[in-house]
Amino acid sequence: MRLAWLPPKRVLTFANATSPMALNTPQIRAGERRGYEMQQQISVITLGIEAIERSRDFYTRGFGWKPVFENDEIVFYQMNGFVLGTFLKTALETDMGRSGLMQPGAFSLAHNLAREEDVEPLMRQLANSGGRILRPADKPPHGGFRGYVADPDDHAWEIAWNPFWQIDAGGHVIFGL
Amino acid sequence: MRLAWLPPKRVLTFANATSPMALNTPQIRAGERRGYEMQQQISVITLGIEAIERSRDFYTRGFGWKPVFENDEIVFYQMNGFVLGTFLKTALETDMGRSGLMQPGAFSLAHNLAREEDVEPLMRQLANSGGRILRPADKPPHGGFRGYVADPDDHAWEIAWNPFWQIDAGGHVIFGL
Repeated sequence: MRLAWLPPKRVLTFANATSPMALNTPQIRAGERRGYEMQQQISVITLGIEAIERSRDFYTRGFGWKPVFENDEIVFYQMNGFVLGTFLKTALETDMGRSGLMQPGAFSLAHNLAREEDVEPLMRQLANSGGRILRPADKPPHGGFRGYVADPDDHAWEIAWNPFWQIDAGGHVIFGL
Repeated sequence: MRLAWLPPKRVLTFANATSPMALNTPQIRAGERRGYEMQQQISVITLGIEAIERSRDFYTRGFGWKPVFENDEIVFYQMNGFVLGTFLKTALETDMGRSGLMQPGAFSLAHNLAREEDVEPLMRQLANSGGRILRPADKPPHGGFRGYVADPDDHAWEIAWNPFWQIDAGGHVIFGL
């Protein structure tokens, strides 16, 4: 959620926008001979965590989400078109072939709500489930209402109401201005 | 993505799994009086970046993705059910109300491909678009084929073929074993 408060250099019109419908068209890269279909797709977001149960409590009690799979080193959640994984950081480092992953990392995740009045109650619930308020909710210059909460591993979650973005009943989010 | 090589503690059956269909059912939290619909949803992944153009080159040339919106501090990409944002790190820190965000952060993103033979060509293309190979592709113990590439801001991308996960024509990814 943040919308741009600087003037846009380019905004695709609705007809041009890469909507889920548009993604149905295979995108073959010009000049490439491989010909694989280039989807505008992310399949997994994996968060490195220190302790499975502590993280699991935050996501299952705080957000109310249900794992689709879990064992002693990873918990997977089926999300809106992709998968969220919470994976022991040491195991993620091994899989990635690099060490020294740090928190807080230079990224954030967002969960958008349908109603402005739901933002603060969810933030409180997250804080009561092992999270920590980073920024109390307020109105950003571009409109809407949002705050930030850190999960138990210091990963940042923006909890937001943004009246300009569409969210369908299946949780699929479409950019809007 | 990695599948579990440790025995699962719990695997939801297909009927129980939180599929996009299942997400259509509002999840009202037991014992809560607020009654907002708790979607198993992430609306945005925001990556903190140092320079717009450098990052934009990686995502538009490397992955072949098209921005849905861009200005001097942020580029948004409409993804499979959510939005990817690449945002100047200083602006992200201001929005988040915290400083000191670090790279490499303890997370990774994954892009899954339909064919094993597409993994290495995409990794090369990403490396030729400002990325850097972190781990050459190989076969993990749990099956499939994957490697890791860092984007120009040192955010890790897993490029994977996983025959057990479903990806529909719209790019929506469903967990599988």
